[in-house]
Amino acid sequence: MKKQSETRPGRGSLLIIGGGEDRKHDKDILARFVELSGGADRKLVVLTAASTVPQEEWDIYDKAFGELSVARRSPLHVATREQANDPAVVRALDDADGIFMSGGDQKRLLGIVGGTLIETAMHAALDGRGACIAGTSAGASAMTAHMLADSDVELGPEKGAVSLGAGFAFLLHVVVDQHFVQRHRLARLLTAVAQNPRLKGIGIDEDTALLVQHGVGVEVLGAGNVTLLDGRHIVSNIDDIRKGLTPEMIDVRLHLLPSGSRYLLCKPEDKAGASHIADGQPVPVPAPLREFFDNIV
Amino acid sequence: MKKQSETRPGRGSLLIIGGGEDRKHDKDILARFVELSGGADRKLVVLTAASTVPQEEWDIYDKAFGELSVARRSPLHVATREQANDPAVVRALDDADGIFMSGGDQKRLLGIVGGTLIETAMHAALDGRGACIAGTSAGASAMTAHMLADSDVELGPEKGAVSLGAGFAFLLHVVVDQHFVQRHRLARLLTAVAQNPRLKGIGIDEDTALLVQHGVGVEVLGAGNVTLLDGRHIVSNIDDIRKGLTPEMIDVRLHLLPSGSRYLLCKPEDKAGASHIADGQPVPVPAPLREFFDNIV
Repeated sequence: MKKQSETRPGRGSLLIIGGGEDRKHDKDILARFVELSGGADRKLVVLTAASTVPQEEWDIYDKAFGELSVARRSPLHVATREQANDPAVVRALDDADGIFMSGGDQKRLLGIVGGTLIETAMHAALDGRGACIAGTSAGASAMTAHMLADSDVELGPEKGAVSLGAGFAFLLHVVVDQHFVQRHRLARLLTAVAQNPRLKGIGIDEDTALLVQHGVGVEVLGAGNVTLLDGRHIVSNIDDIRKGLTPEMIDVRLHLLPSGSRYLLCKPEDKAGASHIADGQPVPVPAPLREFFDNIV
Repeated sequence: MKKQSETRPGRGSLLIIGGGEDRKHDKDILARFVELSGGADRKLVVLTAASTVPQEEWDIYDKAFGELSVARRSPLHVATREQANDPAVVRALDDADGIFMSGGDQKRLLGIVGGTLIETAMHAALDGRGACIAGTSAGASAMTAHMLADSDVELGPEKGAVSLGAGFAFLLHVVVDQHFVQRHRLARLLTAVAQNPRLKGIGIDEDTALLVQHGVGVEVLGAGNVTLLDGRHIVSNIDDIRKGLTPEMIDVRLHLLPSGSRYLLCKPEDKAGASHIADGQPVPVPAPLREFFDNIV
C-alpha cells in the first residue's frame, strides 16, 4: 500500500466499487479505502442498510478491516427510517473518516436512508471533513443523483426497460452500473444513456473501483476495467419507437479505462487540498475523457 | 416475404449472419437469402466446408430451403484443397444464384477453400453475376479480408489476444464477429479494433443479419442487433503495454443498429442495378454512420 499524505482535502473522495472486491487476500481496494480515509488509525463505519443480511455483511468487513489493522471499525445497521433519523444512531457518523456502503439493493438503501439524518451526515462527512465514502455494488449505484433502480433489459437495449430512482447525489450527471462485464450490463447502461443522454454511463467491473476526487481527478484500481459511455452526440430514434423495442443508437462514445488509469483533471489551483490520485508523471488528458468528466469531477 | 424486383445488380449482395438463424419457424433470414438470390426458382448452393459434420449441416439447410420451396438446392461438400480445385466440383457454383456458407470454423473454411477455384468462383458469382453470398457464424467471419481467427479474450480487451487471418475479402476494412451479445464478444471486438483501428468492428447477434449491397446500402434483419465499433479516433496506450494487459481505449465510437435499420448510403447514380435494401421512405444517414461505411459499402 502506497503511503499517502494525511493532509485532508476540503472535500473527500468517492470510491465506487463494482461489487465483489477482494476481502480475503490482497484486499487492494479495501486497503485503498483505509488509506483514503486517512490510515488505519482512523474511524471507519460500514453502513449495511442495503442488505437484508446486515450482520453477515458486517462479519465480512469486520474481519477484512481487522486484518488491515483498523481498530476503530464499526457497523451501522439501520433497518427503519426511524433508526436512520435517530440522533443517537447517527452520532456514529459524526467523526467517521471513512464510510463504506455494503452491497444489497440500492432501492432498499435509499428507501431506508434517503433524506434522513444519516444521509445528511454522510454529505457532511464528505464535503466538510474530507472523509472517504465508498460503496460496493448497490452501494456504488446509490452514489449518484440519478440512480439505476430497476431494469429488465435482456440481450439488447430496450426502450423503457431501465428506471431510475433518486440516489445520494454524491456524484451528478452520471449513472453507475456495477458487476458490469460479469453480468453483461452494457445493454442496460446503453439503455439508460439512450433514455436521456444528459446522463453519462459508468460501468464498473467486479473487484474494480473508480476513485473520484472532486476538483482533482479520477483513478481506476482493482482487477478489472471501468467502461464509460458518453451519449451526448447520440443520434437515436428512441422517441419514435414503442416501449420494449430496441432503439437505434448512432455515435455513442465509449471509453475503457483499465486498472491503473489515473488522470488529474483539474488545474492545480482548483485543488482544495491534497491529491488522493496516485502519484507519478502527470498524464496528458485526452480531450474526450476531459469532456466526459467535465461536470462530474 | 416482400416481393423484390428480379433485376439483378451488377454486383450481388452479402448477407452476413451472426449464427443461430431461425431454420424451423419463420426463417426470416433464410427467406431473405432466397429473395436476394432472385427467388425460389433460382439455384442455391450450401458450402459446408467450415464444418466437420458437413452432412448434418446440409440436412438442416436441405429441410429449411425445401420448406421455402427452393427446388434447385444442393450441398457443396469439400474436405480437401484437391476437391476445392477440382473443376468438376467447382462447376456446381457456375450458375449458382445464391451461395450459403455454413457455420463451423472459419480457419478450416479458409484452409480448405482459400485461394482455390471455389474462392474464384464465389467472387465471380458475387461480382459478375449479382449472386447473393450468405455466411452464418464462421461463414460470416470468413467474408472479410482480415478475418477474426483466434482469440483468448476473457472479460476485458487484452493486447495480443486476438489474431487475424486472411478471409475471402468480399468485404474490406472490417472485422466481423458473430454470436455477438450471446457470447459476450464486445471485449474481443474491442481488442481487434484497438490492435489496428484501421479495421472497423462489426458484431452481429445470433439470428440477426447485416445485409450489405455494395454501392447501395445496408440493412439489419432478424431478431437482434448489429454493433459497430469505429476506432479511428481512438486514443490508446496499446503500443506501450505488455501483451496480455488491457489497453486503455478512449473515444471508440459505438453504433447500435437494431433489426429494421436500413440505409441507402450511396447516391442513386452510384447504383449498379436494383436495390436489395428494403423499400420505404429514404432515411437520412447520420454522418457517423456514413463515415463508418465509407470504404465498406
